[in-house]
Amino acid sequence: MSLTQIGSNICFGGQQNRYQHQSNVLNCEMVFSVYLPAAAENGPCPILYWLSGLTCTDENFVTKAGAQKYAAEHGIIIVAPDTSPRGEGVPDDPDGAYDFGLSAGFYVNATEEPWSVHYNMYDYIIKELPTLINANFPVDASRVGIFGHSMGGHGALTIALKNPDIYQSVSAFAPIVAPLRCPWGQKALSNYLGSDQSIWADYDTTALIARGENKIPLFVDQGLADQFLEEQLKPELLEEACKAHDHPLILRRHDGYDHSYFFVASFMEDHIRYHAEHLSR
Amino acid sequence: MSLTQIGSNICFGGQQNRYQHQSNVLNCEMVFSVYLPAAAENGPCPILYWLSGLTCTDENFVTKAGAQKYAAEHGIIIVAPDTSPRGEGVPDDPDGAYDFGLSAGFYVNATEEPWSVHYNMYDYIIKELPTLINANFPVDASRVGIFGHSMGGHGALTIALKNPDIYQSVSAFAPIVAPLRCPWGQKALSNYLGSDQSIWADYDTTALIARGENKIPLFVDQGLADQFLEEQLKPELLEEACKAHDHPLILRRHDGYDHSYFFVASFMEDHIRYHAEHLSR
Repeated sequence: MSLTQIGSNICFGGQQNRYQHQSNVLNCEMVFSVYLPAAAENGPCPILYWLSGLTCTDENFVTKAGAQKYAAEHGIIIVAPDTSPRGEGVPDDPDGAYDFGLSAGFYVNATEEPWSVHYNMYDYIIKELPTLINANFPVDASRVGIFGHSMGGHGALTIALKNPDIYQSVSAFAPIVAPLRCPWGQKALSNYLGSDQSIWADYDTTALIARGENKIPLFVDQGLADQFLEEQLKPELLEEACKAHDHPLILRRHDGYDHSYFFVASFMEDHIRYHAEHLSR
Repeated sequence: MSLTQIGSNICFGGQQNRYQHQSNVLNCEMVFSVYLPAAAENGPCPILYWLSGLTCTDENFVTKAGAQKYAAEHGIIIVAPDTSPRGEGVPDDPDGAYDFGLSAGFYVNATEEPWSVHYNMYDYIIKELPTLINANFPVDASRVGIFGHSMGGHGALTIALKNPDIYQSVSAFAPIVAPLRCPWGQKALSNYLGSDQSIWADYDTTALIARGENKIPLFVDQGLADQFLEEQLKPELLEEACKAHDHPLILRRHDGYDHSYFFVASFMEDHIRYHAEHLSR
């Protein structure tokens, strides 16, 4: 697999780069961004994968989250992939809705037609993209974290819970924690996975915690003025599941903060420090 | 003059707000953004005006510069106005070019038709906007700084040099320092001000320094991989003028940095600290 570099800006002493590549898993051309701290010039660095939310591409995090400063300070590489397959021939929501189809891959492997040809973001994130990243950048593949926002918080939590051999740390901003029990999740999972809800549970953080496969600690920040708090995000369901199944959770609730990147940026320093501590040797 | 609030997000413990108002100076409806740190709840705060560059609105700085963290830490209000008059009836570059007309007010008072009806950004920034801000927010009007990027760096430098009674500190990222001697400046000033270059000099940082009206220190950061460095920005002309006329200047050149907000964000902490020190009692 070859990479084509399509952008590069120096930022906080490191390189904020952008690449294009053909994805065999998604059957389309994809773009992702990588921040390489100056420390990457001297040898392998730990790496963090950032998964974005609905309506985003790789660029929202890169331009709005203010993460480069902390990645530079801690010597961590950050990869920001896109949120769905892209391009001509990739099917989209028939009504063009923001919460399904393009920009809304939900980090699952779709089983239903016509989605299953392209919508395999789960395998893209855990297999194809890391293989590409590890082959092209100075990554210490034994020190890998994952985090994300909203739909991407859902992606980060479910992926880390199912792959403790790959990820040593996970955190999320305003994640969807129970897609089986919210409209966004029900729409996406029914379309991508069909009507059998027992399959959906494989992509539901609270269901995975109940299954108890591993005890990777969860670190979650949630704004209390988030416009999606009650209908879609429901952090209380995460809290209940973790309590019932003795799963380690730090859940911080923040008065006044909404769902935007203004919230994400405000607590980015804490998240990168958290990962840096968990990924230190 | 009344303000209509059109946005508010909590960010780093303060409020990132957005307002609309009718401008009598610009003869149109304008939008600006204000960051109010938590400290503003306890009394008047010093204030910084940020002037953006070509193609920008008030939003680029707010979403990309990462300034809120430092404004919160130092208890400084930051106002980010738009870069030109806006709306139906406001004339634009006949070819729709990015470097003149809409988004390219150059912070001058236009004297030529049809520009002079709306393009009075100089008076808007130094008079109308501060009057509105001081009437509506807890501002210590004796502690005011101004900074900006590119065209906005030009605006900040020229405005501070001509108004030492208003501004106690000034800084710039990759500013246009000599519009009389670069294509962007020559195009804008000839259109807005007519052919008499002696009038243009009133909006040229190097000419104002030669005039020697006041000695407010200048703090400027410039990336050496800036795509506009040689043709448009010419920091060596600023250096020469300051040397020839004994004007205090800190000019820092940074290897590898370009003209983007990735550069601006990388040194934002230094600029806000600089202003905080100059605006401390």
